[in-house]
Amino acid sequence: MSNDHLSSSTERTRLRRKPERGSYDQAVINAILDEGLVCHIGFSIDDQPYVIPTTYCRVEDKIYIHGAVASRMLKTLQTGLNVCLTVTLLDALVVARSAFNNSMNYRSVVVLGQATVVQDFDEKFAAMRALVEHVVPGRWEDCRQPTPNEVRATSILTLPIAEASAKIRSGQVVDDAEDYELPVWAGLVPLQAQPLTPVDDGRVPAGIEAPAYLTHYRRSVSPPKE
Amino acid sequence: MSNDHLSSSTERTRLRRKPERGSYDQAVINAILDEGLVCHIGFSIDDQPYVIPTTYCRVEDKIYIHGAVASRMLKTLQTGLNVCLTVTLLDALVVARSAFNNSMNYRSVVVLGQATVVQDFDEKFAAMRALVEHVVPGRWEDCRQPTPNEVRATSILTLPIAEASAKIRSGQVVDDAEDYELPVWAGLVPLQAQPLTPVDDGRVPAGIEAPAYLTHYRRSVSPPKE
Repeated sequence: MSNDHLSSSTERTRLRRKPERGSYDQAVINAILDEGLVCHIGFSIDDQPYVIPTTYCRVEDKIYIHGAVASRMLKTLQTGLNVCLTVTLLDALVVARSAFNNSMNYRSVVVLGQATVVQDFDEKFAAMRALVEHVVPGRWEDCRQPTPNEVRATSILTLPIAEASAKIRSGQVVDDAEDYELPVWAGLVPLQAQPLTPVDDGRVPAGIEAPAYLTHYRRSVSPPKE
Repeated sequence: MSNDHLSSSTERTRLRRKPERGSYDQAVINAILDEGLVCHIGFSIDDQPYVIPTTYCRVEDKIYIHGAVASRMLKTLQTGLNVCLTVTLLDALVVARSAFNNSMNYRSVVVLGQATVVQDFDEKFAAMRALVEHVVPGRWEDCRQPTPNEVRATSILTLPIAEASAKIRSGQVVDDAEDYELPVWAGLVPLQAQPLTPVDDGRVPAGIEAPAYLTHYRRSVSPPKE
């Protein structure tokens, strides 16, 4: 896929409001998709939209969606309905002097398109690996990998990243000029998805410790802060 | 609104898959809505669903959505389209012995209905207060409150919490019986939306420190861990 494919917006993904916050750059879009853990996928049945959270991963210019999470959704999506897949990362509360100028720093991606079922066994297996590695990089080689029956019992959908846009708000408070004189604190409260100490399930054989990819789990692709 | 209103599911919100994870209990639904910071709202235009992240708050049996965030969405919603509003809280990675049994602990709420524009000035003002207090409890009295012009310039939508359901996955890994013998660590990696130290915008008058509701900001409604 050429970069043009992504960097050219369509009428449907064109950012109408605050376009300075928007991006059609593939690297920007991919970084957000790769950092997120959960997407919200939207589809309509009988004029009623549904928005369902589910896990996903990106492999090159495709998104894979794990099927076991929402079979109703999957049955519907298999019919070739239009979908919207959105990933949102919340970075900070923007606490302004005036209520009107409060905001949030966030990075989000919207992908429009039609999801289709992955039928090919090898592509399904590769997608299951990618889904595991998306959530916990390093886990695939340690875990018991899917049997052929498990692969067949799993529904995997794929959505091309062909019509996509990112939207980002970053930086500090922007208040009205006259409000800066107010004796009020204003700034950011950064938010971070913080992993806590892993908790084993009580059935781990003696002598097996939590691996480093879990004890040092970090979601962000930026260098971890210790 | 009676409790029955919420605790009775409709065909559209009935949980088809893993109904043991579902709830129509109003207190459960409200707790999830009150803890979340961002919702994903879905609506369709010309058979294309869109899923947009935005801020919201709950006041009794209504959700309010702040308008300035997405004017395209608001213009569309004002026409009385059906919407789906979803709030998802991610609690833990569930790291199983087998790839097939990996999961996530989460709490989510789905609300279906029609959003309408709030026209009444006093209701709009109250909703703006509730939106501020939803994100940062304690902030409203400190900030410069909206002027009448700001209230008029703000679009607020409301959605009744009439057709809603919650879905929750909690607890430990559930692996296949034969996999428990594997020499593999398994368990939870709890995730927490961790607020970091507030960062002022460089224009706060000398002597004004970040208030306790920001330095001790905690999202969870459960008692803060110090």
